[in-house]
Amino acid sequence: MKNIYIIGVGLIGGSLAIDIKKNNPDMVIHGISRKDATLETALSLNLIDKKATLDDIENADLVIVSIPVDATVKLLPTVLDKISDNGLVVDAGSTKVDICKVVENHPKRRNFLAMHPIAGTEHSGPNAAIPNLFVGKTNIICEVEKTAFKLQEKALKLFADIGMRMRYMNPVAHDKHIAYMSHLSHISSFMLGKTVIDKEKNERDIFDMAGSGFASTVRLAKSSPEMWTPIFKQNKTNVIETLEEYIINLTHFKELMKQDDFDAIFNEMKDTNYIKDILNGMG
Amino acid sequence: MKNIYIIGVGLIGGSLAIDIKKNNPDMVIHGISRKDATLETALSLNLIDKKATLDDIENADLVIVSIPVDATVKLLPTVLDKISDNGLVVDAGSTKVDICKVVENHPKRRNFLAMHPIAGTEHSGPNAAIPNLFVGKTNIICEVEKTAFKLQEKALKLFADIGMRMRYMNPVAHDKHIAYMSHLSHISSFMLGKTVIDKEKNERDIFDMAGSGFASTVRLAKSSPEMWTPIFKQNKTNVIETLEEYIINLTHFKELMKQDDFDAIFNEMKDTNYIKDILNGMG
Repeated sequence: MKNIYIIGVGLIGGSLAIDIKKNNPDMVIHGISRKDATLETALSLNLIDKKATLDDIENADLVIVSIPVDATVKLLPTVLDKISDNGLVVDAGSTKVDICKVVENHPKRRNFLAMHPIAGTEHSGPNAAIPNLFVGKTNIICEVEKTAFKLQEKALKLFADIGMRMRYMNPVAHDKHIAYMSHLSHISSFMLGKTVIDKEKNERDIFDMAGSGFASTVRLAKSSPEMWTPIFKQNKTNVIETLEEYIINLTHFKELMKQDDFDAIFNEMKDTNYIKDILNGMG
Repeated sequence: MKNIYIIGVGLIGGSLAIDIKKNNPDMVIHGISRKDATLETALSLNLIDKKATLDDIENADLVIVSIPVDATVKLLPTVLDKISDNGLVVDAGSTKVDICKVVENHPKRRNFLAMHPIAGTEHSGPNAAIPNLFVGKTNIICEVEKTAFKLQEKALKLFADIGMRMRYMNPVAHDKHIAYMSHLSHISSFMLGKTVIDKEKNERDIFDMAGSGFASTVRLAKSSPEMWTPIFKQNKTNVIETLEEYIINLTHFKELMKQDDFDAIFNEMKDTNYIKDILNGMG
């Protein structure tokens, strides 16, 4: 592989660009964006070697689509139209069902690989790109059997070389489980932030009382609405299910408090301490 | 001040011991605990110089009570009974109304200072004690006017010297605002952990999908139920109010999703991004 095209040079696209270039200095990283300002920033940060447009994709060995998932669904068929027979298109979206569906009958389906690198921060845009973001991180690959073997082999080596651990999953299972493991955390954090801001907005001093615990729990509420709104839209059914279960659990906790059943409150927390083992098993 | 007695040599008591000793090598740090094993650990970690019992408190220049808030309410009057006229007792509890109330008519009330250092981690016990935990952290002082001036002056200098910034607040305001800024975060995190564990307990592999966002948001669910149950019990009314508002906000978000009102979903998140400014203003 020689010519890599990255559509959307933000946190994920830009961070992929940094690590791929570091491992493969001979590769040429081309950036594509709706906004020229983004490409200029990406150039000035040395994330990309060259600016490009969608019409250049015929020269691509690999195209990485790392834009919001609604834009991916709209753009992906066009990108796949333009890819050469020996080129591969991958996406990095946080949903997989709608993205896989929009290309399921595309004549170049075998030139597409659906993936979701579970990596990121609450920041976005080219300035948020950082080296080594993917070291030890899980990269979920969906419908791997639908991608031409030689193409997936090269791409997966590229991603393994920058530290990713591949896991294979079907899109329906991906979207169902990621709703619990990622999407719900974002909503719980956004609504925590909203609750506190609504209450305390006239008492700025009060935020001096915020400790590292609050900062950690509310961190995801800094995330980009441009990125997250389409994720929640595409994964609506699963996300609503997680929210319903979360609200039931919170309401139950509140009722236990109202009933002064603090033995049960203790047990709720004790049982959930099991999350320690889970988090220790991560990474 | 020469002889410092710390009742409860855990995360907070132990971390205070480390920094106070470092700044004041001539002071002698005495540890008091219900459990001798805790004191032995604290000795072996050099958190304390000596083991002591409640009967030794008559020799104390300063007693720091850093035990769960229910135990503080029970023990504080006895500790205050034993303190000398020139000694000071401070507590480090996460609630302030019940603690101030239990000593309001105590003959030695002027030998007590109510405080809440907003510092900590999700870990507990003497092994969790770390240096510099309090650098730049807020220390809330309640009813400062009820403490003898000479005693508060010495103690506050000691705490300022280890990096704390003092803020003065009445106990009712403390308990009301801390419910939003700290207690709610803990419940949102515990219930997030519970929701995910309940759903995924039979699919351990799924936790490979957890990213740093989930880890951050669920971190507080590792916290000690022994410490947090009495906090929720003492601050029941305020905590229930925060939970009700949080549940209303989550339910509203869910309803917007059900109605496909993703413009409103976008705005909910955009408005809450304001938390960036708040968190940047911290520390």
